Amino acid sequence: MNFCSNCGSDKIARAIPDGDIRERWVCPDCGMIHYQNPNVVVGCVPERDGQILLCKRAIEPRKGYWTVPAGFMELQESMAEGAARETQEEALADVEIHRLFAAVDVPHAGQVHVFFTASLISDFAPGPESLECKMVDPADIPWDEIAFPSGTFALRKWVEDAGRDRGVHLHKAERRIY
Amino acid sequence: MNFCSNCGSDKIARAIPDGDIRERWVCPDCGMIHYQNPNVVVGCVPERDGQILLCKRAIEPRKGYWTVPAGFMELQESMAEGAARETQEEALADVEIHRLFAAVDVPHAGQVHVFFTASLISDFAPGPESLECKMVDPADIPWDEIAFPSGTFALRKWVEDAGRDRGVHLHKAERRIY
Repeated sequence: MNFCSNCGSDKIARAIPDGDIRERWVCPDCGMIHYQNPNVVVGCVPERDGQILLCKRAIEPRKGYWTVPAGFMELQESMAEGAARETQEEALADVEIHRLFAAVDVPHAGQVHVFFTASLISDFAPGPESLECKMVDPADIPWDEIAFPSGTFALRKWVEDAGRDRGVHLHKAERRIY
Repeated sequence: MNFCSNCGSDKIARAIPDGDIRERWVCPDCGMIHYQNPNVVVGCVPERDGQILLCKRAIEPRKGYWTVPAGFMELQESMAEGAARETQEEALADVEIHRLFAAVDVPHAGQVHVFFTASLISDFAPGPESLECKMVDPADIPWDEIAFPSGTFALRKWVEDAGRDRGVHLHKAERRIY
């Protein structure tokens, strides 16, 4: 952040506002505090006939690796709507979203990743962000080629749950060097 | 947003970037896209001996109304850490965080509210954002004086769960006119 987005001042700097205990971006000219907070990534594990839908990423980071459909939650949508939208974008597929079953804190990235169970209810094909989409048996999940640790965690818990509702699995992801 | 926080340009405007389908704040001078996404609010229901800790808000919005400890998740913390921090700030109290049991989409505010069960493990007293803190029996929750619909939902589900793990309760809050 080089300029205040409110008044255009170039004097914006890190400072602890009155009544706060954390450094924020604060503009000394207009007084605006520019808060920065974690983002939410929403995804789902689309299932049909015991198989799950995976997408091979066409974009960085982790291009060429496999993931469940997931991406940044947008304003004016719910988490479940976001997970369904991401599935439509990445796999051109419709899903029925069921339960929130995994939530992964990724503090080093300033993110929270939330995963739902889901039923695949349409055909599928790779969207612009995917090289390939395929249905896999749980036994054939390519564990060494999953794009992100949060996805690995969600898939592992999905397999362990085996269709049972065992509440929401919480996990805190550590930084991983690829 | 009146100025680009990257280059200071006053030509920043809403536009749909290449490859996107949504309007964003885009700077025509430096090309930066300024994404805006939902914020996460984290809270908990601190319990001890069957009673729960409520705080009366000392600040707007909804000053004078009751809430469970909750507030904006910060960068570099987990959701559970954020819920514990908010309890420390609002009620000067320590909690042990247990399960994520409620998640409320608040799309009109661009927020997701996440609530944990928790055990109160210290004394408590109102912090700077609270007028008063007190333990209440579930039967004595002041339902008509709860600050926000998400808190009402979380408290209702907490009472219904009665200590059982019934998974995570999802809810989409509608705009409420006070």
